[in-house]
Amino acid sequence: MTTIAIVGSGIAGLHLGLHLRKQDLDVTIYTNRTGEEVANGPVMNSVAHMHVTRAIEEELGINHWVGEDYEYIRHYHYNGWGEDREYFGDFTKPSAVVDYRIMLPKLMQDFEERGGRFVYGTLFREDVDALTDEYDLVVVSAGKGDISAIFPKRPELSPFSAPARKLAVGFWHGVERLEPNGVGVNVVPGVGELLAIPMWSFSGKVMALLFESVPGGPQEVLTDQKYADDPAAYREKTLEILREYYPPMYARINEDEFRLQGEKDILQGAFPPAMRQDFVELPNGKFLLALGDIHMTVDPVQAQGANSAAYSAKVIADAIAEDKVFDRRFMEKVARRRAERLEAATNWINTIIGPPAEQIPELFSAMVHNRELADRFTENFNNPIGQMDLLGSTERVRAAIEATKSTVNA
Amino acid sequence: MTTIAIVGSGIAGLHLGLHLRKQDLDVTIYTNRTGEEVANGPVMNSVAHMHVTRAIEEELGINHWVGEDYEYIRHYHYNGWGEDREYFGDFTKPSAVVDYRIMLPKLMQDFEERGGRFVYGTLFREDVDALTDEYDLVVVSAGKGDISAIFPKRPELSPFSAPARKLAVGFWHGVERLEPNGVGVNVVPGVGELLAIPMWSFSGKVMALLFESVPGGPQEVLTDQKYADDPAAYREKTLEILREYYPPMYARINEDEFRLQGEKDILQGAFPPAMRQDFVELPNGKFLLALGDIHMTVDPVQAQGANSAAYSAKVIADAIAEDKVFDRRFMEKVARRRAERLEAATNWINTIIGPPAEQIPELFSAMVHNRELADRFTENFNNPIGQMDLLGSTERVRAAIEATKSTVNA
Ligand SMILES: Cc1cc2nc3c(=O)[nH]c(=O)nc-3n(C[C@H](O)[C@H](O)[C@H](O)COP(=O)(O)OP(=O)(O)OC[C@H]3O[C@@H](n4cnc5c(N)ncnc54)[C@H](O)[C@@H]3O)c2cc1C
Ligand SMILES: Cc1cc2nc3c(=O)[nH]c(=O)nc-3n(C[C@H](O)[C@H](O)[C@H](O)COP(=O)(O)OP(=O)(O)OC[C@H]3O[C@@H](n4cnc5c(N)ncnc54)[C@H](O)[C@@H]3O)c2cc1C
Repeated sequence: MTTIAIVGSGIAGLHLGLHLRKQDLDVTIYTNRTGEEVANGPVMNSVAHMHVTRAIEEELGINHWVGEDYEYIRHYHYNGWGEDREYFGDFTKPSAVVDYRIMLPKLMQDFEERGGRFVYGTLFREDVDALTDEYDLVVVSAGKGDISAIFPKRPELSPFSAPARKLAVGFWHGVERLEPNGVGVNVVPGVGELLAIPMWSFSGKVMALLFESVPGGPQEVLTDQKYADDPAAYREKTLEILREYYPPMYARINEDEFRLQGEKDILQGAFPPAMRQDFVELPNGKFLLALGDIHMTVDPVQAQGANSAAYSAKVIADAIAEDKVFDRRFMEKVARRRAERLEAATNWINTIIGPPAEQIPELFSAMVHNRELADRFTENFNNPIGQMDLLGSTERVRAAIEATKSTVNA
Repeated sequence: MTTIAIVGSGIAGLHLGLHLRKQDLDVTIYTNRTGEEVANGPVMNSVAHMHVTRAIEEELGINHWVGEDYEYIRHYHYNGWGEDREYFGDFTKPSAVVDYRIMLPKLMQDFEERGGRFVYGTLFREDVDALTDEYDLVVVSAGKGDISAIFPKRPELSPFSAPARKLAVGFWHGVERLEPNGVGVNVVPGVGELLAIPMWSFSGKVMALLFESVPGGPQEVLTDQKYADDPAAYREKTLEILREYYPPMYARINEDEFRLQGEKDILQGAFPPAMRQDFVELPNGKFLLALGDIHMTVDPVQAQGANSAAYSAKVIADAIAEDKVFDRRFMEKVARRRAERLEAATNWINTIIGPPAEQIPELFSAMVHNRELADRFTENFNNPIGQMDLLGSTERVRAAIEATKSTVNA
């Protein structure tokens, strides 16, 4: 009987665990937080699952959040330059955004009910290595913390030594939802981005305001000034920045109701994006396979971390379904099969947050009057490969503009 | 309007051309032989299309050869060692073997009827390069001849500097078909292999005897002694070798009827297998993309050349369907998507014809009494990745034997 250990119980480890239980394999997840601790903990992120991920969740029977409370279908864009600045793009099928403090505990419960086992406790590098003596396969999905050093960085795909954006995300009341429901995608050169994400959380509908701030720019204060030090001042600062840089977002705010859902509902921090090796070989001849943020950490600005992790978990699960010899060939198979999509995701995001790539403002400017292009850009949040086809170079952006020019202003 | 040129009208170029016409693109095939010349020419090969390829052909609407005249479902094995030497493995769906002198002219006609264009004439390297000024994309599928030098060899995947086998294939009358119809797969260490392939040709049912001879071994005479010099002596030699090394095949011969279908129905020769680069960039910044034998030439012993070409043509067609910017990104996309399967095919075959890999005789010996293993090996002619999963190393062969041991002698 094939036995598999997974380290980490985030979306990556849980997806993989649930796939493997569907294959009736013996799976144990090692993790350092119980479902209750996750539920009672601070905000970790504000994750949109694109329909491509939701299709996997349907296949896994974990699509517990279907319906308009959780779903959105549109990107409402605001460009911080040019004459006409507002436009939108639609998805072909809705995405969903559920607070992970609700989602992950539920999936942990699903996993246990379906015969998966949890072992709680914090593992150190040696403990992870030792699991390889006990299990046929060990997959590490322990997130982007220190433990990620198990897998060396791939320098050619990890161009940033420091964070490209400083992050601050809070779950707020008092921000109007639009009709149809959508994510606000606001881009202001030199300042950063603001994503306004209609979430489902403990109090029901809230708005995640995810400020992605250029280091040294006027918005980084929202990361540097700690909320807990002076909640009222922080709220004031947030309104000030909304007023100054994001007028269409400010217009959606009801100041009387504008407040955080709760004290734990804000996350401030920064991390450098990185792409790490897919696997490492240990002295005993066995391997550790990386999955999720520990393998690829991307800036959240294009909402690809968890969606990529879900994709990657499925690639691994499919590889296991067809082959249970966990040698170098197996590891290379997984690496190869997920490389195209994962590298596309990381390259796409780096093109947005990196040193200005000339084609990006060109594309964003063109989308203002080109609905077909805006829809394609939006739908491609499901398909990073298609996104790189669209925006990978100036030549490509111009070819896309040319191919859609008949629809402009239509 | 996207325009595409294909150089070469073998199975590779025709499959691609037909896919692209289905996409309604402007496609021109440059080739140096008309359909009539192909039909009237000598035997080129003896190609089995596995069901995975036939499914593509059905999708293309070129499945003109369906039914028991063309199809077989079994591999009849003979090991030239051990006590029990005969066994068989079954496919899940039939393969088909039609003389390419019948098949290719028909597909050329299909291509023209569907709006494809032919330009006849022999192209030199400069002519091929010049096509890139005229067409958006140029795909080169001109076979394994001199022109293949356009694409440099990949040394790590081209371990042979000389042919590993000498080939001789004739289309014979007077060899009994078995029930159910199948290919004879005869393996004799130090001598080589003999594949007995029930073909459909101009006179109807014939048997292709494909002798794959170890250079310097007792069978190479069938390649070296030219048939035309003394047909009767050649026939005698063939019978002698069948008697000596392949008793189960010899038992199927009716000497009174044993003769070639016709004078053009024999091919003798040898070539070193090679894997070449997927594409080259030209000084004008455009690319040539390799397809078929010009990209990967494999020894025919595992029947993967044309099946790989059909796969590769589909990968290219699918890539074109989603992306019409033919830059380096496009070329790398194609390279990456077909790499796993094509490298598996080439590695598999090299494992069989290369310096003895210890796990191969172990697998072949085990299959004698292990039907499940023999079926898996057979079905994997559709799936080179699965084949490498099965036989890529001693560990893997032993794992497969272990996993199926309960079925042995059942
Ligand atoms: C603000 C923000 C917004 C985001 N928005 C999106 C979005 O819209 N779309 C999207 O796709 N992605 C988004 N992401 C990214 C997404 O959150 C991550 O990619 C994803 O959650 C990573 O999941 P994971 O399972 O790999 O890692 P984690 O969720 O970090 O899980 C790691 C697990 O390992 C456990 N663990 C860690 N160390 C140890 C140890 N030493 N021993 C035992 N257990 C350990 C942890 O307890 C946890 O269970 C966003 C991220 C942020 C920060
Ligand atoms: C004996 C034998 C048995 C085989 N059995 C199998 C099998 O069972 N299964 C399998 O999958 N494969 C098998 N193969 C391999 C298979 O035949 C080849 O892989 C396949 O036919 C290659 O197709 P292609 O289109 O790439 O090349 P080709 O068929 O060689 O086509 C090349 C085309 O380019 C044209 N051309 C060449 N040079 C020029 C030029 N300079 N200018 C213009 N046109 C040019 C030619 O006229 C031709 O149209 C076998 C091969 C042999 C020899």
